[in-house]
Amino acid sequence: MSNTTITIPRSVIWQDDSLKLLNQQIIPQLTEYLELTTIDDVWDAIHTLKVKGTSATSITAAYGLALASLQDTSESLEQFRESLHKYRNYLASSQTAALHFIWALDRLVDSISDAKSINEAKTTIVHEAIQIQVEDEEICRLIGENALSVLNQGDRVMTIGHAGSLTTAKYGTATAPFYLAKEKNVDIQVFVCETRPALHGARLTTWELSQAEVDVTLITDNMAAHTIKAKKINAIIVGADRIAANGDTANKIGTYNLALLANAYQIPFYVAAPLSTIDPSITKGDDLPIEEQNPKEITEIQKIQIAPEGVKVFNPSFDVTPGELITGIITEKGILTSNYQESISSILQTN
Amino acid sequence: MSNTTITIPRSVIWQDDSLKLLNQQIIPQLTEYLELTTIDDVWDAIHTLKVKGTSATSITAAYGLALASLQDTSESLEQFRESLHKYRNYLASSQTAALHFIWALDRLVDSISDAKSINEAKTTIVHEAIQIQVEDEEICRLIGENALSVLNQGDRVMTIGHAGSLTTAKYGTATAPFYLAKEKNVDIQVFVCETRPALHGARLTTWELSQAEVDVTLITDNMAAHTIKAKKINAIIVGADRIAANGDTANKIGTYNLALLANAYQIPFYVAAPLSTIDPSITKGDDLPIEEQNPKEITEIQKIQIAPEGVKVFNPSFDVTPGELITGIITEKGILTSNYQESISSILQTN
Repeated sequence: MSNTTITIPRSVIWQDDSLKLLNQQIIPQLTEYLELTTIDDVWDAIHTLKVKGTSATSITAAYGLALASLQDTSESLEQFRESLHKYRNYLASSQTAALHFIWALDRLVDSISDAKSINEAKTTIVHEAIQIQVEDEEICRLIGENALSVLNQGDRVMTIGHAGSLTTAKYGTATAPFYLAKEKNVDIQVFVCETRPALHGARLTTWELSQAEVDVTLITDNMAAHTIKAKKINAIIVGADRIAANGDTANKIGTYNLALLANAYQIPFYVAAPLSTIDPSITKGDDLPIEEQNPKEITEIQKIQIAPEGVKVFNPSFDVTPGELITGIITEKGILTSNYQESISSILQTN
Repeated sequence: MSNTTITIPRSVIWQDDSLKLLNQQIIPQLTEYLELTTIDDVWDAIHTLKVKGTSATSITAAYGLALASLQDTSESLEQFRESLHKYRNYLASSQTAALHFIWALDRLVDSISDAKSINEAKTTIVHEAIQIQVEDEEICRLIGENALSVLNQGDRVMTIGHAGSLTTAKYGTATAPFYLAKEKNVDIQVFVCETRPALHGARLTTWELSQAEVDVTLITDNMAAHTIKAKKINAIIVGADRIAANGDTANKIGTYNLALLANAYQIPFYVAAPLSTIDPSITKGDDLPIEEQNPKEITEIQKIQIAPEGVKVFNPSFDVTPGELITGIITEKGILTSNYQESISSILQTN
């Protein structure tokens, strides 16, 4: 059976001498691609969170460094290398919390260690940036293939947060099986929790799945239990922010809710994430830090006050799902299952 | 130890020749009492949902009939009885879905069956309306006393929806123990789920508890699991829309979520509701009808679009919590526990 061609939105598009970046802050009201032509444009886009997601941010930063390299007017390789370091440090200062994109920047810097001319160095940097994006797309596609292997024609699957195509090169993580199913003409019905407070599920996940004409239904977060029962949900699949050595998983707030509901209903609960999400230096979930966000995220929606002035608020951005509630961690190298301590350690050793 | 005097907001205040009604639609932005002086004012307030909650609506309707009676200019008792029936039918037409307030209207009509003069009839009707409000306040206070008996100094309690003072004469149902605890100087910390889509938790429950200076913290619905763990919640208490003969309970969407989480954490899950909420003609939860509401409740917040235009939505207004997940149903006559089939049948017989 031939594949169906579908539209899977990308957030970062390289255009040889500029970068197109989807402005995720104004979706779904407006679909606007920003045209970034200078390193300053890129710094600003990352700094003001126009791009979101570990992978997409890394790819954007890499292309930012590529843009600056192409525009550099150094007259010696030595001078070019010095400029490159300055660009790298400048871009690295665009976000203080995220660290993954520093890896991408350093990978580009390292790629020219053997370069013999400015021209070769510039070409190498551009190729390396493209390669980072290509690799990320391939990782997501493999996660999608592996995830799809545990789903069936006609399944109804629930997700929360935004682990979508826009946060990666393409396909996303939790969303990858939905796009691949659509391409392969496998019917899967997706139920998306709106994901308060920032509404990433309502604003972004439903938007991007709708672009590909995936069958998607939006619910509020508190409808999850009733929906699992009323709509006979077969599985829940979510992304991951960080995974500890024992499989405990930090992800967007509400994930842990769903894991407990899946357990109550005895339906599988999957985490879809690249191996790079696993942090073997963190022993267990209790060691995963959970930041609290601005109370106004809860008390105001688009600047409209929805709660009494000054009411006390608890606003954790993530929660931690214990490994024992996770049926499988779906990576690009296969599906890990309990005992996670062993399966994670083993896959990281062979990687 | 002497009781502390606290402010518990009331939604309906009788003023001998007019009615003050708190406009629940504009809380928390504005606290506005509407002055209702005619039966038309009352019809309109009920019809446009300025008053919310079974008890508060019944009390408002009763006072509406009292107002019309006082203003009636009939010259014979016979004529007065005819007018009263017309007023009764007119007010009964203000809401087609709610039925409980018809009971209140008929109770007033029936109260004058022995009246011997127009003057006596009018006085009786006003007294009966006041009596309905007084009885409701007493029921809520008793529910609060009984609920407080299962809570302890220092407890942290979670709730969802708005089963508050404003929906009743005073105290509310799920909120009653919080007010009584405050009066008796028992420290209880309350965590309120915002309760999407209509945000009754964020807008109304936090507002009214704050008026009484109850220690209240607002969370979004998807934070419940993490909050139970992180804040060491001791119990969950909710209201009820309708309770079947076997204890299965229909209540605001999200209640079932919390019941499953309470079960996972092995903390008690209580339903606080007057006996009038129990419908013995409904055998089990599957027979409790669940309406779907307007999709725009989910896709728009205060007219601002927060999801893609035309996205499919599932918007059930209630969910059903099975009796086996309910630790106790707290009524004005005591706390029912499993087996509900028996305990409900027995309490209704002795009632």
